[in-house]
Amino acid sequence: MDKSIKIPKATITRLSLYYRQLELLEFDGYRMVSSEKLAWLCQVNPAQVRKDLGYFGEFGVRGVGYDVIDLQLEIKKILAVNRDWNLCIVGIGNLGSAIMQHQNLQERGFKCLAAFDNDPAKIGKITQIGLEILNVSLLPKIVKELKIEIGVITTISSAAQAVADLLLSSKVYAIVNFSPGMLRVPDYCMVENIDFTIKLDMLTYKLHQKLGC
Amino acid sequence: MDKSIKIPKATITRLSLYYRQLELLEFDGYRMVSSEKLAWLCQVNPAQVRKDLGYFGEFGVRGVGYDVIDLQLEIKKILAVNRDWNLCIVGIGNLGSAIMQHQNLQERGFKCLAAFDNDPAKIGKITQIGLEILNVSLLPKIVKELKIEIGVITTISSAAQAVADLLLSSKVYAIVNFSPGMLRVPDYCMVENIDFTIKLDMLTYKLHQKLGC
Repeated sequence: MDKSIKIPKATITRLSLYYRQLELLEFDGYRMVSSEKLAWLCQVNPAQVRKDLGYFGEFGVRGVGYDVIDLQLEIKKILAVNRDWNLCIVGIGNLGSAIMQHQNLQERGFKCLAAFDNDPAKIGKITQIGLEILNVSLLPKIVKELKIEIGVITTISSAAQAVADLLLSSKVYAIVNFSPGMLRVPDYCMVENIDFTIKLDMLTYKLHQKLGC
Repeated sequence: MDKSIKIPKATITRLSLYYRQLELLEFDGYRMVSSEKLAWLCQVNPAQVRKDLGYFGEFGVRGVGYDVIDLQLEIKKILAVNRDWNLCIVGIGNLGSAIMQHQNLQERGFKCLAAFDNDPAKIGKITQIGLEILNVSLLPKIVKELKIEIGVITTISSAAQAVADLLLSSKVYAIVNFSPGMLRVPDYCMVENIDFTIKLDMLTYKLHQKLGC
């Protein structure tokens, strides 16, 4: 890959979608898939599939399509999900518990190794995946011991920035933030925000545009 | 607004971000905000803020900035969140429970009016927001009675398509899908997918690119 080319963020997101559909195709017994079919499955257009993959090399065979297994491996390499990653989750309410047990997390090589909270009523309890909930004050020590690479924040919003600061000072520079509101972090820290109410706004905007609701 | 102009999806998402920061500014006592400050708070550049808002009209005063309250109202109108919306949630596990009680849902005018599941052990139980969990077979009837406009799917992935079909046949044409995998729906149905493992892929891609992990 030519490092000087800036890959759009949307391309990376679509690679994740392609990869998930390729898994399903493999499960269904397919060996090859055309860009047309892959595009249809992912609800994009075929030219987009070819363009997205084109950033990273030549993967398909003209007139034949893509090898379902090979292309998965290639995309896994690009996304760096061809190895395991160590996670911790901070904030063990319903959301933290839901994420921890998410059916895909383990399968995709994201290993949740530690669970933290600051609620004395929760600390010491065992989660459904068998982790003991630890006092968040232990985070720096545990993160180092277990080589945690990604922090997932599922606290209430007023606690999120302090957790982010704690992760940063513990040298965790990749954060998934489920709490509403933006985190202030230095440039070298990567944050992906997941605020589902923003998706709801997108739906209401579209409903209003299309149906005049 | 000129209806012939196609508004980028990313613009709509950013409007949601601007609006959330304007709320915080109002809370902190600010009356006016410059595009520079608003941009900084939302981690975008000021030209982007002006461009995004420019699709919908002239809101700021040159050299003075935007009125914190007026701009909120304008964005709420654009996003059609200046009125309440009726929701139902299907699949009352940890994730469904977490979403139902989400601190922002009610505040933002998204009213969760019904909760469905197909698990006999859950049906009849009362959720933390006081809703009785109903058998999913009642969905068409309840949706009509309560004028549900948006369906939130938090089932396991193997059940998601059947739930989407049920919502569609009940004339709910706006869906937030938390289960992994794409839903097959007709064009007139709007779906927003939230698969947090895709956000994890984005992080691992960036970690790999930046730090060579």
